[in-house]
Amino acid sequence: MRTDQRNTNSLRPITITTNFIKHPEGSVLIQVGETKVICNATIEDRVPPFMRGQGKGWITAEYAMLPRATQERNIRESSKGKVTGRTMEIQRLIGRALRSVVDLEKIGERTVWIDCDVIQADGGTRTASITGAFVAMVLAFGKLLDSNTLKKMPVTDFLAATSVGILPDGTGILDLNYEEDSKANVDMNVVMTGSGEFVEIQGTGEEATFSMDQLHILLELANEGLSEIFEMQKNALEKLASRIGETMEDKGDSK
Amino acid sequence: MRTDQRNTNSLRPITITTNFIKHPEGSVLIQVGETKVICNATIEDRVPPFMRGQGKGWITAEYAMLPRATQERNIRESSKGKVTGRTMEIQRLIGRALRSVVDLEKIGERTVWIDCDVIQADGGTRTASITGAFVAMVLAFGKLLDSNTLKKMPVTDFLAATSVGILPDGTGILDLNYEEDSKANVDMNVVMTGSGEFVEIQGTGEEATFSMDQLHILLELANEGLSEIFEMQKNALEKLASRIGETMEDKGDSK
Amino acid sequence: MRTDQRNTNSLRPITITTNFIKHPEGSVLIQVGETKVICNATIEDRVPPFMRGQGKGWITAEYAMLPRATQERNIRESSKGKVTGRTMEIQRLIGRALRSVVDLEKIGERTVWIDCDVIQADGGTRTASITGAFVAMVLAFGKLLDSNTLKKMPVTDFLAATSVGILPDGTGILDLNYEEDSKANVDMNVVMTGSGEFVEIQGTGEEATFSMDQLHILLELANEGLSEIFEMQKNALEKLASRIGETMEDKGDSK
Amino acid sequence: MRTDQRNTNSLRPITITTNFIKHPEGSVLIQVGETKVICNATIEDRVPPFMRGQGKGWITAEYAMLPRATQERNIRESSKGKVTGRTMEIQRLIGRALRSVVDLEKIGERTVWIDCDVIQADGGTRTASITGAFVAMVLAFGKLLDSNTLKKMPVTDFLAATSVGILPDGTGILDLNYEEDSKANVDMNVVMTGSGEFVEIQGTGEEATFSMDQLHILLELANEGLSEIFEMQKNALEKLASRIGETMEDKGDSK
Amino acid sequence: MRTDQRNTNSLRPITITTNFIKHPEGSVLIQVGETKVICNATIEDRVPPFMRGQGKGWITAEYAMLPRATQERNIRESSKGKVTGRTMEIQRLIGRALRSVVDLEKIGERTVWIDCDVIQADGGTRTASITGAFVAMVLAFGKLLDSNTLKKMPVTDFLAATSVGILPDGTGILDLNYEEDSKANVDMNVVMTGSGEFVEIQGTGEEATFSMDQLHILLELANEGLSEIFEMQKNALEKLASRIGETMEDKGDSK
Amino acid sequence: MRTDQRNTNSLRPITITTNFIKHPEGSVLIQVGETKVICNATIEDRVPPFMRGQGKGWITAEYAMLPRATQERNIRESSKGKVTGRTMEIQRLIGRALRSVVDLEKIGERTVWIDCDVIQADGGTRTASITGAFVAMVLAFGKLLDSNTLKKMPVTDFLAATSVGILPDGTGILDLNYEEDSKANVDMNVVMTGSGEFVEIQGTGEEATFSMDQLHILLELANEGLSEIFEMQKNALEKLASRIGETMEDKGDSK
Repeated sequence: MRTDQRNTNSLRPITITTNFIKHPEGSVLIQVGETKVICNATIEDRVPPFMRGQGKGWITAEYAMLPRATQERNIRESSKGKVTGRTMEIQRLIGRALRSVVDLEKIGERTVWIDCDVIQADGGTRTASITGAFVAMVLAFGKLLDSNTLKKMPVTDFLAATSVGILPDGTGILDLNYEEDSKANVDMNVVMTGSGEFVEIQGTGEEATFSMDQLHILLELANEGLSEIFEMQKNALEKLASRIGETMEDKGDSK
Repeated sequence: MRTDQRNTNSLRPITITTNFIKHPEGSVLIQVGETKVICNATIEDRVPPFMRGQGKGWITAEYAMLPRATQERNIRESSKGKVTGRTMEIQRLIGRALRSVVDLEKIGERTVWIDCDVIQADGGTRTASITGAFVAMVLAFGKLLDSNTLKKMPVTDFLAATSVGILPDGTGILDLNYEEDSKANVDMNVVMTGSGEFVEIQGTGEEATFSMDQLHILLELANEGLSEIFEMQKNALEKLASRIGETMEDKGDSK
Repeated sequence: MRTDQRNTNSLRPITITTNFIKHPEGSVLIQVGETKVICNATIEDRVPPFMRGQGKGWITAEYAMLPRATQERNIRESSKGKVTGRTMEIQRLIGRALRSVVDLEKIGERTVWIDCDVIQADGGTRTASITGAFVAMVLAFGKLLDSNTLKKMPVTDFLAATSVGILPDGTGILDLNYEEDSKANVDMNVVMTGSGEFVEIQGTGEEATFSMDQLHILLELANEGLSEIFEMQKNALEKLASRIGETMEDKGDSK
Repeated sequence: MRTDQRNTNSLRPITITTNFIKHPEGSVLIQVGETKVICNATIEDRVPPFMRGQGKGWITAEYAMLPRATQERNIRESSKGKVTGRTMEIQRLIGRALRSVVDLEKIGERTVWIDCDVIQADGGTRTASITGAFVAMVLAFGKLLDSNTLKKMPVTDFLAATSVGILPDGTGILDLNYEEDSKANVDMNVVMTGSGEFVEIQGTGEEATFSMDQLHILLELANEGLSEIFEMQKNALEKLASRIGETMEDKGDSK
Repeated sequence: MRTDQRNTNSLRPITITTNFIKHPEGSVLIQVGETKVICNATIEDRVPPFMRGQGKGWITAEYAMLPRATQERNIRESSKGKVTGRTMEIQRLIGRALRSVVDLEKIGERTVWIDCDVIQADGGTRTASITGAFVAMVLAFGKLLDSNTLKKMPVTDFLAATSVGILPDGTGILDLNYEEDSKANVDMNVVMTGSGEFVEIQGTGEEATFSMDQLHILLELANEGLSEIFEMQKNALEKLASRIGETMEDKGDSK
Repeated sequence: MRTDQRNTNSLRPITITTNFIKHPEGSVLIQVGETKVICNATIEDRVPPFMRGQGKGWITAEYAMLPRATQERNIRESSKGKVTGRTMEIQRLIGRALRSVVDLEKIGERTVWIDCDVIQADGGTRTASITGAFVAMVLAFGKLLDSNTLKKMPVTDFLAATSVGILPDGTGILDLNYEEDSKANVDMNVVMTGSGEFVEIQGTGEEATFSMDQLHILLELANEGLSEIFEMQKNALEKLASRIGETMEDKGDSK
């Protein structure tokens, strides 16, 4: 039995509030247990210099925590004058994951900026960010469809992430909260598509290791949890959900 | 008539949600019209080097905006690697204002960190930050009273801020939203105490000037608006409100 | 009686030396008592990116102190690798104040760079900088008139600044030196135009507050002092003084 | 058939030159095909602040490329004034991996600094760095054993890394060179211990995804390749190889 | 004939104004032709970390130019956020040169901070800085003698610097102004002691070279010029001049 | 007798390995005794902004040390976030020296980037860098000749550098190793051309001075040592050596 009475294969309660902030093209507040992240998506009508002239778009992400998102106040990165390695790793991961389910040629020379700001942290902030950012991004593309800037939804599949881990007693668990994360021997973040393919697996034995058998248990837990999360994303996206994959289908048709 | 149908001397609707984030000693979400700021107060059991050994406390503030708090995405200061002049000005103002109503000797060698993070901006973010930060700070001191770390509330008076300005047609108005702020000739931020004294007046004629008569109209508008805001702070603080000024009274008594 | 024998409403001796440094388009050494600031104005034939294509000019200021302008050596900002909040506040104030008396459309797409470098500090460096920078800027415009680059002086009014404050015994005083500034309860910087309008009022009760009555006394002291300072600026500018306001008059004429 | 005529499950030629640089406590030049990395290990007799007083040691890594390690000259990070996200990710990975096979309590309050400097890059620089850094670290511990500073080798297992990937045609391949890495759909870095446990799996589908079956093929390829690499590490370490695991055995004995 | 009518072996007019700024322990304004540098010396009662506990003092220098010291405005290094290579080279040179004529053990664990701020530049700013800084430093030591903090002047010899160069027509010249410096093929800065020894020779053929014979001519010109400069330093230092070398004499005596 | 048994006028063994790294246009590993520097030359088909449109090329250099090139680990400049003054001085020196023997007009609007990375340091790293960088640069120009991008070798003379110094007992010595460099009173770096002209002389008496006679001894030692080094460069460059100076001869012919 886990500290918050969950089963080993239970997610924490998840809520996805759309249109949370008024200015962004797409805005979501995602809550995963006590973890709360504001995910905003911005559409910019140009691409970074290294992408210019290729007729393709780009998706990039930034991630930050409020100083008191955490138990102890953490120093603001703007005060330090630099972004930490942890932050960079997370924002690179978010951007990469989102790009795997978007047909960049379909969005034209535009950049999607994803901003994930953790206002309260209790473990799993990077996976919550990916899950929320996907919804915010689809909402933003929805605006471009509404205005006829885009004809088809350029998103080819659903995308979400969760964490799994192994406790010191060997138990595999799904969706670790901060306390569990602190004591786990192995911590793995899994990003999957709605059709059950992996996008990213990052498994780390911090001062520990794990076997092939344990890897299987972890991936199975992640797979179960993510099935539930995809349903929540569909509910949050309402009518837009049905338009995901239409680019994909077209590709199928044109073959 | 103003764009949002207010009278010249009307505030926008204000709500103050206490205990908004779970980790900080004091946490407030303040909404002033469409402006939304999370104000968190942290108590640290030491003071910065320049204050050590004086038996006094310190209060300092940091201010930031989420990239999409604004209409156009603004670049994250952590990405720029430095804090802008505007941000520095605002955080210096917030800290200075709060220090004017706290008996720093009464809090011992502790630092109060105030973090004001604007999640949605529609004008008046710095004055909303001061008003909200005051409440968050009092909540944090409340925790120290509860744990008997402090015997008396070290806050000597209420503190709040608002903006006033002069439109191009010469009308003085209270509590400017973003649109009004953009077109105003004169912009003034006024910080006052609950007993009606000024703590800070910052009046600026950006590419314009103002007369002594106009100054009087502006200060009167600010005074009226602040009276209402002090009531809202009292309601938000509930029982803690009555403890403000107790240090002051003691000082009176001991004379 | 003040430490340097002045009356409460007396300025310190002020000298304005024009053409102090040979390279700049406008150069002034201003001395206010023991405070000495070199104010240089540079004309650059382009505007910053955010102003391009609007057919208007821009005025921006930088401010610094030599390490031993002060009693204790202060660390060079270039060694720290960043500009402090105090410096940013001051340079934003100087630029904003100067822009309020210049018709930016009349100077075309040019930038006026103002550099205020304090070589000796004894209180009031920011107000001395504004007073001196105004003269340096007018001298620089004078060069543009001489070369027929500009047809009319784009300066619409005189501009100067001084400080006022309240001592712990409640006395209001004009033009504080460093010692007075250190012990004053309230410190206010006032920027006015030659025609008696306010451009900027920044009144701060550092760990103190002030009443409406005290505000009036302070503004009256500032007004008196500034009248004298405008005379000194006129003397320093000689023939150029008479050309200030000609843009203004034209505007009047064209109505 | 691969561009360099290798089989899908063949490693490139690997050489490990020990004692490459004279000053460090442990120094290795590792060559994996055309990729060449200098791995130096430094022992410092103290730990970073966050580790002090716990009686444990720490292992940390830094990674860099010479500007012309790559086809196109890359800008020196010291010139940019900051370390890129990619570099941070890699150095965090190297440090974490090494810590998983060292009993940090056995090394006392010491820090092992690992410096991996890529002098020529042709794919797989991060995995070559881990493989080489492990050898350099063991050499450095060997010095501490020689001087009787340590009594037992604190390394509990061998550690090495390699990359695997999936080509666009679906073929899984081992040990990708730069050209293969550029065109692969899926790229996975696998860090394992000599006893066959996983330390880290980082699998990424850059603008692509992968299935559970493909994951199995990749992990099998990695496993095969790493078996060969562990033999090369043993040869390079000579007599020191036999001392790895002695801490482990003691733990076993004491149960 | 040179552009300013000087002979090849003539210095520009030099004036050394002592006690130029009131706060520093030693302060000098040195003018060499149109080049004007404020040299301030500060005594700090501690040494930097790498010197602690050795019972010796340290001398370090900082150098900067006002933005309009030059014909074209140069960007403030505090705005750039870093010090240029040229500035670093010059401040390292000034510090090193001054240390060569001070018995660091005689000053105890104190640091002498030298600040050279160029307010107007016309060539030779680094050599003027050394010449002026020497005088400022001796004045500061004079204060320590006056207060009996030091018993003997710790300065063992006079120190000054000048520049020499070779024009495209092969003529060797002394004390180059900016125009001459711009067109010279070879530029050499020479730092000497009052007793005629070299402290530093930095000769550079920017896109040119020079022969042994030319080197001799340059060193002879420098030697002549410096003899005159030492006289000016003596006059500026008045009674303090006679105390230079007393440490030296003691050393001689004690042999 | 010197610590490594050399005569006062003996160089350490020098080896120059060409084509050390595969990617750069020119690549050299130079070893001078125990000092080892990788010198890579890159040709870029454009010049920095300040050189554009002049039809001339530019040569610039960067220098760095691996953290364990030295006895004690030195902190990576990318981690510090800035380049030290020493590094800046050295890279400016290398660039300036190389430019003195290249006809920049002959290389067109191209930049030669020189990267000198010290992998093992034992004194004389900056002079070894210059000697090695010259060879790397000529190799890179050789590539441009091979591809007919250049018609003539734009290098007008050989270029090399060495160090000389004076030991505390007054002995002048050639090519100081680290131990000698640490105890020398005077340290001088001399850069010469193959035809015996000086390009740069940097002589420094760190807390010491030197006489004209000593200067002559040092320059004579440098001259002898450099004659030997030019032979090694010729051997390393093989057939390319004969093409150096052809631009020069042309200039002679065209007179």
